[in-house]
Amino acid sequence: MILDLDPTLLESEVSALCLRLKQMKFVPVKQPGCRLALVQGVDKHVRPDAFLHLHGVQKVSPLKEKYKLASRFSHPEPTIIECKGKRIGGGHLFVAAGPCSIESKEQMDASAKAAAAHGATALRGGAFKPRTSPYDFQGMGEEGLQILRDAGEKYNLLTLSEVMEPAQVELAAGYVDILQVGARNMQNFSLLKELGKVKNPILLKRGFSATYQDLLMAAEYIMAHGNPNVILCERGIRTFETYTRNTLDLNAVCALKELTHLPIVVDPSHGTGIRSFVAPMSLASIAAGADGLVIEMHPDPDRSLSDAQQTISFDAFGKIMRDATLIKQTLAEASVI
Amino acid sequence: MILDLDPTLLESEVSALCLRLKQMKFVPVKQPGCRLALVQGVDKHVRPDAFLHLHGVQKVSPLKEKYKLASRFSHPEPTIIECKGKRIGGGHLFVAAGPCSIESKEQMDASAKAAAAHGATALRGGAFKPRTSPYDFQGMGEEGLQILRDAGEKYNLLTLSEVMEPAQVELAAGYVDILQVGARNMQNFSLLKELGKVKNPILLKRGFSATYQDLLMAAEYIMAHGNPNVILCERGIRTFETYTRNTLDLNAVCALKELTHLPIVVDPSHGTGIRSFVAPMSLASIAAGADGLVIEMHPDPDRSLSDAQQTISFDAFGKIMRDATLIKQTLAEASVI
Amino acid sequence: MILDLDPTLLESEVSALCLRLKQMKFVPVKQPGCRLALVQGVDKHVRPDAFLHLHGVQKVSPLKEKYKLASRFSHPEPTIIECKGKRIGGGHLFVAAGPCSIESKEQMDASAKAAAAHGATALRGGAFKPRTSPYDFQGMGEEGLQILRDAGEKYNLLTLSEVMEPAQVELAAGYVDILQVGARNMQNFSLLKELGKVKNPILLKRGFSATYQDLLMAAEYIMAHGNPNVILCERGIRTFETYTRNTLDLNAVCALKELTHLPIVVDPSHGTGIRSFVAPMSLASIAAGADGLVIEMHPDPDRSLSDAQQTISFDAFGKIMRDATLIKQTLAEASVI
Amino acid sequence: MILDLDPTLLESEVSALCLRLKQMKFVPVKQPGCRLALVQGVDKHVRPDAFLHLHGVQKVSPLKEKYKLASRFSHPEPTIIECKGKRIGGGHLFVAAGPCSIESKEQMDASAKAAAAHGATALRGGAFKPRTSPYDFQGMGEEGLQILRDAGEKYNLLTLSEVMEPAQVELAAGYVDILQVGARNMQNFSLLKELGKVKNPILLKRGFSATYQDLLMAAEYIMAHGNPNVILCERGIRTFETYTRNTLDLNAVCALKELTHLPIVVDPSHGTGIRSFVAPMSLASIAAGADGLVIEMHPDPDRSLSDAQQTISFDAFGKIMRDATLIKQTLAEASVI
Repeated sequence: MILDLDPTLLESEVSALCLRLKQMKFVPVKQPGCRLALVQGVDKHVRPDAFLHLHGVQKVSPLKEKYKLASRFSHPEPTIIECKGKRIGGGHLFVAAGPCSIESKEQMDASAKAAAAHGATALRGGAFKPRTSPYDFQGMGEEGLQILRDAGEKYNLLTLSEVMEPAQVELAAGYVDILQVGARNMQNFSLLKELGKVKNPILLKRGFSATYQDLLMAAEYIMAHGNPNVILCERGIRTFETYTRNTLDLNAVCALKELTHLPIVVDPSHGTGIRSFVAPMSLASIAAGADGLVIEMHPDPDRSLSDAQQTISFDAFGKIMRDATLIKQTLAEASVI
Repeated sequence: MILDLDPTLLESEVSALCLRLKQMKFVPVKQPGCRLALVQGVDKHVRPDAFLHLHGVQKVSPLKEKYKLASRFSHPEPTIIECKGKRIGGGHLFVAAGPCSIESKEQMDASAKAAAAHGATALRGGAFKPRTSPYDFQGMGEEGLQILRDAGEKYNLLTLSEVMEPAQVELAAGYVDILQVGARNMQNFSLLKELGKVKNPILLKRGFSATYQDLLMAAEYIMAHGNPNVILCERGIRTFETYTRNTLDLNAVCALKELTHLPIVVDPSHGTGIRSFVAPMSLASIAAGADGLVIEMHPDPDRSLSDAQQTISFDAFGKIMRDATLIKQTLAEASVI
Repeated sequence: MILDLDPTLLESEVSALCLRLKQMKFVPVKQPGCRLALVQGVDKHVRPDAFLHLHGVQKVSPLKEKYKLASRFSHPEPTIIECKGKRIGGGHLFVAAGPCSIESKEQMDASAKAAAAHGATALRGGAFKPRTSPYDFQGMGEEGLQILRDAGEKYNLLTLSEVMEPAQVELAAGYVDILQVGARNMQNFSLLKELGKVKNPILLKRGFSATYQDLLMAAEYIMAHGNPNVILCERGIRTFETYTRNTLDLNAVCALKELTHLPIVVDPSHGTGIRSFVAPMSLASIAAGADGLVIEMHPDPDRSLSDAQQTISFDAFGKIMRDATLIKQTLAEASVI
Repeated sequence: MILDLDPTLLESEVSALCLRLKQMKFVPVKQPGCRLALVQGVDKHVRPDAFLHLHGVQKVSPLKEKYKLASRFSHPEPTIIECKGKRIGGGHLFVAAGPCSIESKEQMDASAKAAAAHGATALRGGAFKPRTSPYDFQGMGEEGLQILRDAGEKYNLLTLSEVMEPAQVELAAGYVDILQVGARNMQNFSLLKELGKVKNPILLKRGFSATYQDLLMAAEYIMAHGNPNVILCERGIRTFETYTRNTLDLNAVCALKELTHLPIVVDPSHGTGIRSFVAPMSLASIAAGADGLVIEMHPDPDRSLSDAQQTISFDAFGKIMRDATLIKQTLAEASVI
């Protein structure tokens, strides 16, 4: 249930309304633009007009669609997320590049320098690593976040890093601009709720067997709990094919453009798992209409501590940036003609 | 890396060894039977004999298989988990039954009474619910856990309930006998690590597009972090078929029997999503060799707050218990002949 | 469109009606019980009452469901197919056993002897082999069919063999009782039409990524073209799991029982691809309610020219027959209580 | 097994060699460039040197790879197929456009005119339609092939149409330039063998759950039986996603470029099933490196007798041709820099 409020309500009146709703056993969360979302247990049997007599409620939207805040139906214009003067979505090319794992100060400095030189928007790097084996390297933790922040600031890049549990959110949000939810955590609802409480943009990766609707419902969790700044990321799905690590689903770009106003980016590194496929699938993503790319690169790809087989060199990254920009320009000019 | 220690070592000597390993940048975790597992970052380039000179280390097992503690290779006999005098695995029929969500004291008391009358081992019920929509009922929380505990104690049933985040583990472990990891959290590694620190049996559900190896690696996380009591649960995978909610994969029972010593149970409620399929697929599971079943039942299935379409009545449950027991006996007698 | 005719019509009147329908650009096919199916191009825009004035037409059934003849809705009782005094479907246990490929007279004689001794209904063996490599052994052809027929007759077994193209149907129907459509040919519509013209029972294997509806539509092809004797066979689907050759989907047994009146059997040999899984999955199939089994066995499984890794010995087959019969009895008795 | 022959052999000597091989129970097929392929039953136990003493045999290649003729390993340069002065593969943009089903002379004339005006290479249209329902329109047959041929000749376009069974191959090859194998028939081995006997280029569509290797093995069937002119076509795979008809797998373009020398084209109409997705996915295909496109268009898309929801207008096709050409140029120029 979404309640649109009278925009002239005083803060104290909103608080009183929230208190009243809690007494009615609902959990209200404030949204941008004088709205409340009722989350965690709206009784299906409550009729919308039970809310209309409450002081300050102007309109009640029952949830006919499964996702409301993320839907293009209720918000036809594409969302543009602003972060430190950079824009994500709405025709602006967003590219995050960097190593899978943060390994050292030198590695991140070199990566940031190359990313900036080739025109990337953000520097990525993992400090908390979701590894399928308990015996593998699990990341540098907070020390890694500091290294990432310093490298980003030095080269005027946004920073992007993954969080894996609710307790890490506040810590990471203090160091990093954009928080990432990994594919394996796309339906970690406790984590999604916690991310609703911060203001950082959230890069939400599609689970490897999540439908488009599952992905949008996960975005709705973050939004309904208070954070509207969600970026969706297609990163490949699991199919019967074993030649590639995953099957990159670029239909998702078209489908999500139709279903939601949120920005959509593509991760061709995980989506293919093969170094030589990253460039062609990056260009295919942009041609399909994606708002950006997330790419694993490393000063010395073969020595990368994780994901070496899908990590590209700085030079290869430079060529992708050049070609992706050319394709974006070509298509922009063509649509004008 | 697994280190087998001299069984005559004093506690203080083990502590000294652990300290030494931490200085070497490893994270040691104590295992049953005088073993240490080195988790979270064993350097691939360290040679096993670097550990052999350490005081008290008798044998070093580098990880050729991806999972070591869960593997049948290193532990050929089936594991039998004992909990309050009941046995799980190794030919004992384990059946957990109860509603999807804990809704009230009356509902749980009636469910426990029926479960016990028909010979179930455990009472299940969700207090923290992983719902795909943020607007849906998210469970009764701690109040629900108390209701569950009381009903279980009254009818001498083990209790089973899901935890969704690391911060819930300690709380839930105080109320509930068996903690469940849901399919969507099978690779929530932070949660798995936390579950390694308690002693309760863990019912680990297979993610809906997890391979057998993925599932065993998730079990290995819990075991390597200190808790050997893991029960695996097949609950259906996501395929192209839309007539059923999931495709129940009973090949998994045969495959896991071959790969691991851990008990394997089946959840035909989620595995089919259709009430009338629960009985035949329960019997098929037992015939395939499963160690038990997890079944959603409710005093009034059509009024269940969640999963109504796959929830069965007490009478239907009674018939399943009777027929499953008959099949188990028939097969046990046949194998003797 | 299905037309029910006046049962007192003379043959000549039916012929005249068919001629009239052909002039109207429809293709009528005679069905059991005074019915005509209009196949291959019924115009969606023709209204049913355009047929009601035709002489002899009593009822016109437009196709609301996608499959009509195969549907349980229009034919609630399970179909029992009779063939040389043996019955398939409706509670009778049908088991076909034999080698993947027919290799020699001796091999087939030994197989038939063992199959009969253990109580099988039919002898299976491939004469035309659908091999994924053009360089592999493609079967003995007609010579193989003769060997199969002789072995079946000697031991009073029905015979079952695969056809791969329309031109083989007539030839094979002269030798073999039951014709099989392989998974790769489930949507070979030219072949399905040709099989509609013979009277032999058809064992139709589910394609490895066919939905239940796809399978039923394929059955409908055979039935609409004149042959009502279709047996459906679940033989595993392709998923992301690579440990097994296929993922056997026993939900299909429950679903097809609900959707159709046709008999449903299971092939655990292809459905698992692993010899040690054939027995437990055979028993699981029977417990789930399947009408029978199709099993690959060989006098010397390790020397089988094809599918050796999933082929079982005569002794293993005997044990499956014994245990499957016990489970079927147990469940039959239980349902009486 | 592949035998390379002495290029100076007389025709009569080759015939004698073939006769000798047949007596040895092998089936030899002549290949381009003085080669023989031994198909249909090479005994695994025969050693290669058993052939070396035969008159005229210079080299014997046992099949270490599963596919030999299709492999890039044995033929590093991309194959360019020439047909009536047009070139397919090797950087030449091949585009086939036209309606799903051939419906009338007027429809095909209009389609051919538009296709030619916008720069297409070929006119497509179905005369034999593989329909999942026996009651649906199954195509105009030979009459349709004549209409297709006439329209193609009038506008100087190659023609492309599907064949569904071995018996149709000779007929269709007399009318149509390029013969198509549909996704459902990709492993119809009888059909593939028959297509090995003609010289027309074959457009081989990937089955909707075929792996890359399955597709290449199907191509190998056609090639080993004598026809080297195979064009591979990605047309979407079946996954759990139901929003789109299929999931278009553009990783396949990169993978097949690596594995084979054959041309690779993409069908975004079936690969998405949604009209508005055809343009962006066409451009994505070209950006990923595809050699061409196969697109369903119709003079009046909403009145198309089949596949209306994925069929585009002539204008939409014109815009795709323009943009695809621009992207191809942009990338060609970029690779020079």
